[in-house]
Amino acid sequence: MIIEVIAVGTELLLGQIVNGNAAFIGSALAENGFDAHYQQVVGDNLGRVADAIGLALSRADAVIITGGLGPTRDDLTREAICAATGREMRHSDTYEEALRERFARLGREIPASNFRQADYPDGAEMLPNPKGTAPGLALEHAGKWIFAIPGVPEEMEHLLVEEVLPRLRRAAGLEGALVNRVLRTWGRPESWVGERLDDLFESSNPSIAFLASGGEIKVRITAKAASEAEALAAIAPMEEEVRRRLGPAVFAVDSETIESVLFALLEEKGWTIGSAESMTAGLVAARLTALPGASKYFRGGIVAYVDDLKRDLLGVDVSHGVVNERVAVEMARGARSRLAVDVAIAVTGSAGPEPMEQPAGTVVIGVATPEDAAARTLTFAGDRERVRTYSTTAALQLARLAMTGAWWRRG
Amino acid sequence: MIIEVIAVGTELLLGQIVNGNAAFIGSALAENGFDAHYQQVVGDNLGRVADAIGLALSRADAVIITGGLGPTRDDLTREAICAATGREMRHSDTYEEALRERFARLGREIPASNFRQADYPDGAEMLPNPKGTAPGLALEHAGKWIFAIPGVPEEMEHLLVEEVLPRLRRAAGLEGALVNRVLRTWGRPESWVGERLDDLFESSNPSIAFLASGGEIKVRITAKAASEAEALAAIAPMEEEVRRRLGPAVFAVDSETIESVLFALLEEKGWTIGSAESMTAGLVAARLTALPGASKYFRGGIVAYVDDLKRDLLGVDVSHGVVNERVAVEMARGARSRLAVDVAIAVTGSAGPEPMEQPAGTVVIGVATPEDAAARTLTFAGDRERVRTYSTTAALQLARLAMTGAWWRRG
Repeated sequence: MIIEVIAVGTELLLGQIVNGNAAFIGSALAENGFDAHYQQVVGDNLGRVADAIGLALSRADAVIITGGLGPTRDDLTREAICAATGREMRHSDTYEEALRERFARLGREIPASNFRQADYPDGAEMLPNPKGTAPGLALEHAGKWIFAIPGVPEEMEHLLVEEVLPRLRRAAGLEGALVNRVLRTWGRPESWVGERLDDLFESSNPSIAFLASGGEIKVRITAKAASEAEALAAIAPMEEEVRRRLGPAVFAVDSETIESVLFALLEEKGWTIGSAESMTAGLVAARLTALPGASKYFRGGIVAYVDDLKRDLLGVDVSHGVVNERVAVEMARGARSRLAVDVAIAVTGSAGPEPMEQPAGTVVIGVATPEDAAARTLTFAGDRERVRTYSTTAALQLARLAMTGAWWRRG
Repeated sequence: MIIEVIAVGTELLLGQIVNGNAAFIGSALAENGFDAHYQQVVGDNLGRVADAIGLALSRADAVIITGGLGPTRDDLTREAICAATGREMRHSDTYEEALRERFARLGREIPASNFRQADYPDGAEMLPNPKGTAPGLALEHAGKWIFAIPGVPEEMEHLLVEEVLPRLRRAAGLEGALVNRVLRTWGRPESWVGERLDDLFESSNPSIAFLASGGEIKVRITAKAASEAEALAAIAPMEEEVRRRLGPAVFAVDSETIESVLFALLEEKGWTIGSAESMTAGLVAARLTALPGASKYFRGGIVAYVDDLKRDLLGVDVSHGVVNERVAVEMARGARSRLAVDVAIAVTGSAGPEPMEQPAGTVVIGVATPEDAAARTLTFAGDRERVRTYSTTAALQLARLAMTGAWWRRG
């Protein structure tokens, strides 16, 4: 089944925003086994939006339109669907009433223009949008499907996942369930992961695939079955086998992040955490506080960018250089005591572009826990920003390995 | 003159990468006064790429194609241009020789497939690409223009700016120079900026426009003239007038950033800087070290996320709450002395989603310099990430106002 995405909005043509929606939808369609040949972007112009829809209907089985469903006169997707399909516009008194109630609940006056959002092309189904005022639309027309969903990413994602994809799967005759589980790994190259899973790639249901992004390798296990429960049951033994082969390289499942995994470990052990940073200069602390409720686990950090502060604030002996594993361990131990935390993550290194003691891209990460302390030297290619970002992720990953004991066991 | 951008690449359809190129080109085209009605994305398929080019030629005056110029069999843009225009493929022995020399210089074997990059549609000009092996292409066909440039962003940007835009401007009869200067402002709403510049919007050359993005308002002054020098001369008095009206709200010009502006101020005054952070937890320190050479100005920072560390590491009296201006000033003063810096930036607040003392989105920023210390309370809407990012920018901006004395003068 071929599906074409049309993004509506002059702001996209002007480059004021990047079309992240198209990437999100493209990725979701691919995961569900749908094909895509083209994407379009079109400005807020009735004739051109209608033409874009007509073109997409001529070459695809279904069209997903994002944007142009707002309350202003620029929002023309509803009208364009009517124009492209020769259908008349209807008005839903029920939805108008729901809009009134929504605004009343918020204690706000409803602008008259908002009632346009209760309009729909004849025959279309209105798709509930709990995150905004514009409903989505689903219309079967001449054996093809047209979906329109808002351009606001949060609303788009919700409507795509909850309303559009299930209808597309039914339309494609994919009656049963398709379930993906993504195992996220860190610290091993793609070739290492690939070799260990080599024979598993022959399995067709569940199937496995892997992709590298942002310094991690993701292994995706996909199962098709009559029901979600059956698909999950088919995934379980494959997941167990993949985990057995990859060991502690697997750090998270699906939407879990290294931050959420660390917090779960801290919660389990009743520990607190802190940081001592030179090269990453606050990025580790910032990542550790990105999630709400961080203050339960994260107490604080010291950014000791210059040598005398490493000495004065962390008690590090800086007389023999500052980019080495001894210093990283001393920084971590110093942070444990000065911040009164159980686990401390330390980062020192040379971010570039100029080398500092070590070649640019060298990072030394130390972790101290109540059990032990150790450091490891890594190198990353790329510019300063990339080196700092990757070093931050590496620091969080090594903290995980230290807290589970996998680091010391591995030697 | 209407211009259509076509991005070629199956990875775009699959959502593996986001089409940032289209946004960059769209923005550059708009700045140069060109119109855009559509953008297309098409996978690596010869017939479909050719169809996309044909469609674009039917409705635009020029087409810019990104991607599909690499050495692999998937790279089909050259062939698609031939197919769409009925032209034959030629081969440039000169360019093949240049490729051989390039690889020899790098001491690398040249893969035979790379010689495909010396192919070009009959009549096309090869555009030099100093950043990669794939040349761009420029072809005048049936009164319209076709440009093909690589999809690698760095190469795309170079070829667009250096080769494509000048040719488009000549084709559009824009003979002289068009120069933009962007004055970046922070801290005043769009309406405040708009009111102060109201009558200036009537000026047509230089013209002014403004746009809001990422919490700042940018004022763009554009002049057209026979030469760049004349355009710059036309911009100067307008810039002076805008600066006079907006005062210290203007913090940077063109590609300057608040970080580079702060460093210039620190250099001028011979001062060092440090940070004391609670809510932003390292983001201020990370921003202050994003630029190479930061250690000349930035010494370090303290992330005091929990109350007892605010007391122990910064000497703050936390007995009457921690989200208020007195605490922010004490944090800044504490950081000045503990970090031995001239300027200290302090941030405390409630990032959300749960309120902490103050409603979520409340941030209190303190700055201490050798001259004085003060704090200000701001509120930002949005989620935790947005509140922390905007608070970080606000902290850097207030440090600028404090260092220039504009903060104390304003009262």
